[in-house]
Amino acid sequence: MAACAIRGTQEKELDQLFFPKRVALVGASPDEAKLGSIVLRNLMAMKGSIYPVNPRYDEILGRACYPSASALPEPVDLSVIMRPAVEVPGILAEHRGKARFALIVSAGFAETGADGLQSEIVRIAAEAGVRLVGPNCLGVFNPSHRLDTMFLPHHCLKRPKRGNVAVVSQSGAMMICLLDAVRVANAGVSRAVNYGNAVDLDAPEVYEYLADDQGTAVVVSYLESVGDGRRFLEAARFLSQRKPLLILKAGKGAGGSAAAFSHTGRLAGNYQVFHSLLAHCGIREVAGFDEMMDAAKTVSYQRPASGTRVCIITNGGGSGVLAADECARHGLQLAGLPDDVRSRLKDALPSFYTVANPVDLTGQVRDDDYRDALFALRDHFDGFVVIALTGVAGVTLRLADHLREFRSAVPKPLVVHIAQGGVAPRLTRLLERAGIPVYPSPERAVRGLAALLEGEISHG
Amino acid sequence: MAACAIRGTQEKELDQLFFPKRVALVGASPDEAKLGSIVLRNLMAMKGSIYPVNPRYDEILGRACYPSASALPEPVDLSVIMRPAVEVPGILAEHRGKARFALIVSAGFAETGADGLQSEIVRIAAEAGVRLVGPNCLGVFNPSHRLDTMFLPHHCLKRPKRGNVAVVSQSGAMMICLLDAVRVANAGVSRAVNYGNAVDLDAPEVYEYLADDQGTAVVVSYLESVGDGRRFLEAARFLSQRKPLLILKAGKGAGGSAAAFSHTGRLAGNYQVFHSLLAHCGIREVAGFDEMMDAAKTVSYQRPASGTRVCIITNGGGSGVLAADECARHGLQLAGLPDDVRSRLKDALPSFYTVANPVDLTGQVRDDDYRDALFALRDHFDGFVVIALTGVAGVTLRLADHLREFRSAVPKPLVVHIAQGGVAPRLTRLLERAGIPVYPSPERAVRGLAALLEGEISHG
Repeated sequence: MAACAIRGTQEKELDQLFFPKRVALVGASPDEAKLGSIVLRNLMAMKGSIYPVNPRYDEILGRACYPSASALPEPVDLSVIMRPAVEVPGILAEHRGKARFALIVSAGFAETGADGLQSEIVRIAAEAGVRLVGPNCLGVFNPSHRLDTMFLPHHCLKRPKRGNVAVVSQSGAMMICLLDAVRVANAGVSRAVNYGNAVDLDAPEVYEYLADDQGTAVVVSYLESVGDGRRFLEAARFLSQRKPLLILKAGKGAGGSAAAFSHTGRLAGNYQVFHSLLAHCGIREVAGFDEMMDAAKTVSYQRPASGTRVCIITNGGGSGVLAADECARHGLQLAGLPDDVRSRLKDALPSFYTVANPVDLTGQVRDDDYRDALFALRDHFDGFVVIALTGVAGVTLRLADHLREFRSAVPKPLVVHIAQGGVAPRLTRLLERAGIPVYPSPERAVRGLAALLEGEISHG
Repeated sequence: MAACAIRGTQEKELDQLFFPKRVALVGASPDEAKLGSIVLRNLMAMKGSIYPVNPRYDEILGRACYPSASALPEPVDLSVIMRPAVEVPGILAEHRGKARFALIVSAGFAETGADGLQSEIVRIAAEAGVRLVGPNCLGVFNPSHRLDTMFLPHHCLKRPKRGNVAVVSQSGAMMICLLDAVRVANAGVSRAVNYGNAVDLDAPEVYEYLADDQGTAVVVSYLESVGDGRRFLEAARFLSQRKPLLILKAGKGAGGSAAAFSHTGRLAGNYQVFHSLLAHCGIREVAGFDEMMDAAKTVSYQRPASGTRVCIITNGGGSGVLAADECARHGLQLAGLPDDVRSRLKDALPSFYTVANPVDLTGQVRDDDYRDALFALRDHFDGFVVIALTGVAGVTLRLADHLREFRSAVPKPLVVHIAQGGVAPRLTRLLERAGIPVYPSPERAVRGLAALLEGEISHG
């Protein structure tokens, strides 16, 4: 029931994919070295019925095993298929009346030139009334339902915790990189799906589903190609009007496009056209993997806000200058301090501090100076960048208290750049637990902030 | 003598700054909470004579303490001054005949509007025959001489090990960020200097010194302003013809320029002019802090090479596509595989691998596949990007053996992107110990490689 509560009230078709009650695994294996064993173990963590399918066994890991999908005792919501590509058409035919979704993990279809085989599975699935995910994909991860179809052992890929970031990826590799980056960023995942060659399920349908998904606050999406351009743009716009959608489009140049084609067997299309259309529709595109994760981090921690007036408060002049440069790149304004606030602050702080924007508290800073500056400036800016270089003795863990206090009192975007050393790791943990994202360089902190304000993310 | 051996044979003026035999500290203190105590302790690690100067003490930490610089028993190479700005003119006058270099840590000169005070110290130093470093700076760090004038306690800023990266920074904050980034990148530092307001010692003189410094293989330099543009360009060109020089120029836009001025009291100048001049002189500029560190890392590990033909070998299709896109941005070519090599590799590898560029070894990769691909392609490319996503079971620590073997046999640039999980941390350590740099995203790995090949680094 908890799952239902966060999904919204109306039952959707994709609920059967993300919250299945019954799941079959064709190619289940008791042999720990086989991928069909890893996936079976992962699936067994789920609440619901799991049916291993493999003609060579009567039971696997204590569960009855079925010789084929047609022998299943009841229809399943989702059947995961992990058998060599040539066997897939026959396996699919046996799913008639037995499964709503068939998720084909197997590779060896259009991406390797086997276009005929790919057309055949599309035809057979249509005849059998089965919807397809993949082929050539890792499938679905939904921690709130403990659903995990990824063939990666837990000791190789630590799963992120449950959270509010959804991952929609054409590439399986990028799905796992994104999942891991979410985990490292101390954020969590709502739903994730990798749809591979996308013969049926494709990004637009997932976008529409996530638009209404109450467990999802932000969507990060890696794409190489888009099937129906108009349909894609409509769905992306529909989603991005409801919650932040960050799109990373790969396969931009000639080399990248060729690489994308041999990856999922679909044409990457003309990137400039794609880029212009996204911009025209107000859909946010990021320039690369790191920018996507930097943006996703703030957006998963805090709510977007209006305005572009940014204040930088730093204890390192150079770091402040780099942050100021990056603000300019993103269309964020370093507005000046109002005269009265400026003279009040100048009186309160030591004479060798620079009271401007950036506010430079110098290497002789004390934690309290950050608090005094932030509260004095709270009403005059739309977002704040705090830079704390922990190499100096005056930055201590008390800074976390001050920033938490500010964040509770002032619900405006606040990001922090901490450079390593001293209390840095503990300070980072305290801040991120309190929903204040921390970045390892001034530019990355500003990029994170830019994702929350109205400035434009730059494109490479 | 060891220091002499790595410095080159001829004695240079700046040797007295980087390898002083006698050092005075004006403002030395026994009180652990004071900066003058931190610096004294750091200086005492140095081989050579250290003279504390402070009229309030006869001895500090067991060393005789002198009331003023004029009372020193012998002239010193370097005198570090840590007293309030207003006292500095008088202190400098007492240095006549007593010091070659005076390094003024104190802030409160032109950067806070005290132009008169700054002119005064320049005049007095000239009269006293003393060269100036600073004011408003952290000074010098030279691990091979155990020289360290930075007022940062070791528990706040872990020092990097001795290595081949020199750091030249106008900003003190950026010097410590760069030092720490070098440490985190598992590289080491040869010399570092922060020259602050630069009333005398400035980047060009340091560049010329480092050009002949045998301990330095690469120079990273953070600038906000340039005094004499012609002199700067000549020195930068002189240095960059001998070893890689990576310049990060901050204070680019209006906001950044203003921030730079209130930081070190010098005008940032027109960035576009600066940028064009650097490009014209063939001097490498990087777009931001992260790009500088990514570039510095490869350049400190490996030697630059000619050519722009890059081969990407990956076990994740999407990661390969992002790397391909980034190659295009840097003018690196993803050349195709020669036909004979391609068919030989196709026969050797499983049929569902993609034998093109990128070579996609898929999620079912085995370590040996990387070795087979690399050795088959060794003669056909100028540089290699290896992508190993450790979420799959087939990537083990044996990959480090294969890459080390390849690197010994083939002295061409080789960079690696590893995405976290499983053996990733141990694999990273093994590779970096063997001089193979590892990056956390495909784009950053390519940026690292671009710094070694003839492609252009992109500018933000």
